[in-house]
Amino acid sequence: MAELPKSVSIREVGPRDGLQNEDPIPTEAKVRLLDALSRTGVRRIEAVSFVHPRAIPQMADADEVWQRAAKVDGVRYSALVPNSKGAQRALAAGFTEIEVVVSASDTHNRRNVNRGTDESLDDIAELIDLLHQAGATAEVIIATSFGCPYEGDVDPARVAAIVDRAVRDGADRVAFGDTTGMGTPRRVRGLITAVRDRDADIPVLLHFHNTRGTALANLLTALELGVTEFDASVGGLGGCPYAPGASGNLATEEAVHMLHDMGIDTDIDLDALIEVAELAEELTGRRLPSGVLRAGPRTRLTASSG
Amino acid sequence: MAELPKSVSIREVGPRDGLQNEDPIPTEAKVRLLDALSRTGVRRIEAVSFVHPRAIPQMADADEVWQRAAKVDGVRYSALVPNSKGAQRALAAGFTEIEVVVSASDTHNRRNVNRGTDESLDDIAELIDLLHQAGATAEVIIATSFGCPYEGDVDPARVAAIVDRAVRDGADRVAFGDTTGMGTPRRVRGLITAVRDRDADIPVLLHFHNTRGTALANLLTALELGVTEFDASVGGLGGCPYAPGASGNLATEEAVHMLHDMGIDTDIDLDALIEVAELAEELTGRRLPSGVLRAGPRTRLTASSG
Repeated sequence: MAELPKSVSIREVGPRDGLQNEDPIPTEAKVRLLDALSRTGVRRIEAVSFVHPRAIPQMADADEVWQRAAKVDGVRYSALVPNSKGAQRALAAGFTEIEVVVSASDTHNRRNVNRGTDESLDDIAELIDLLHQAGATAEVIIATSFGCPYEGDVDPARVAAIVDRAVRDGADRVAFGDTTGMGTPRRVRGLITAVRDRDADIPVLLHFHNTRGTALANLLTALELGVTEFDASVGGLGGCPYAPGASGNLATEEAVHMLHDMGIDTDIDLDALIEVAELAEELTGRRLPSGVLRAGPRTRLTASSG
Repeated sequence: MAELPKSVSIREVGPRDGLQNEDPIPTEAKVRLLDALSRTGVRRIEAVSFVHPRAIPQMADADEVWQRAAKVDGVRYSALVPNSKGAQRALAAGFTEIEVVVSASDTHNRRNVNRGTDESLDDIAELIDLLHQAGATAEVIIATSFGCPYEGDVDPARVAAIVDRAVRDGADRVAFGDTTGMGTPRRVRGLITAVRDRDADIPVLLHFHNTRGTALANLLTALELGVTEFDASVGGLGGCPYAPGASGNLATEEAVHMLHDMGIDTDIDLDALIEVAELAEELTGRRLPSGVLRAGPRTRLTASSG
């Protein structure tokens, strides 16, 4: 077995990616969720996105949520932006870690933003400059990196070429999104290997969905390849838009539970995190798909009498 | 990465282990499920158990189910028995592959059968003789191999000692059950390594539950260690008795989906299997926890127009 990392950095994306794919909840509830997460020991939180409220009504109150949220020392908060207007809003709100997104699949990108992948990359080059000039970092999230629900397989060489371009344009980090849960250990190995062959030095973050049950197997594969940065969403917040009822994001507590049992540190207090998953269920009024939320960690024993 | 096996042998346990942990369904429905599974290409099916109907009413009609079921060429059918009376029934029904069970955890064994692990192993030694004299094979299933809901961690050395005993008593195969989903990649590696150090030659089968999301990560770890026999339950049939609402057995179609994408053969027709998972939902009237059932395989694309 490959030597596994001693610790990994989890970015909690429930407040943004999670809530963006749930029915809208009140501003007050969003602030409660964000603040509760900030107190779990997690070191990174994707807090909000600055998108047009007509496109994504769930994030219409991003400015207010962020203004009211506790900014806890030791937690890095990030925001996602779709364009320069969003970037200006994020910078004005005080964010210094900002994410932009493009789909590896041309069809998926056109469906999302009505333009091709290359055109989006041109925009992103300008966005990276804008962010750097303001002193912020820019992460390029590459959606559909492990497969596209319209096109099927996505060639790792195509994704690696997008990474080349992002690195050339100054991206500080790239993230690979398994947008509809098409990732498997084979796909993870193929993509990470292809990217490392060409851009060995760019920091890499992986974002898995558990749509087909493979999220933790994919995470394990990535660990064996030395990847140490992962997104996850408390309770598994964030449905899967392409498969009603299917689970979406990897639940943070499922990732942390497995990692801790493997002796890999995350700085996160698992019990506190499970309490936040319970809160997320209460706030969304939806049964969330997390097994560790339902059953508790493996260390939670049943009384043997009675 | 370790060289992975080219093919694995899946034993479908939905008709027995699955249905035993669901609300009872009619005999006719059990036969339909069993026959549909026999036509998926799967090579092994755990068909029924011969247990006392007061203990497990779900299996009260085991004789009739088996009598009416199609016995498809190329499929090996097995039955689980709790004692010599059950073994006699299984042999009389024509089974030649028979499973017996013991819990690695003494507390769990006492809760199940009101006797300690060692006493159960004494019984099993006699059962193995009885089965062998009748020309049948005997598999010893070791429950709570990766943790006990009452005792917590189970020492791999304790499980390996149980394997020693079973091998000495003539067991043809041992199976390790992750009864309440406490397995993680670390636990799988620890147990398989401990067993191989002492009993390298005994065939090994692994039975994972997805209670905490780790089933496919555990399966991946076992593949890396060269294990090639796994249980799985169509649709994830079989709730988790210790955690109401939690998922139980690893869904066969989730296992097959990941294995096939990794280029590992199972002989199973995935599309046919998913149809049987749909049938299992219809027959139980319960929403089953399988992601591949919900979302379809990663190769099932969405139309990009409209």
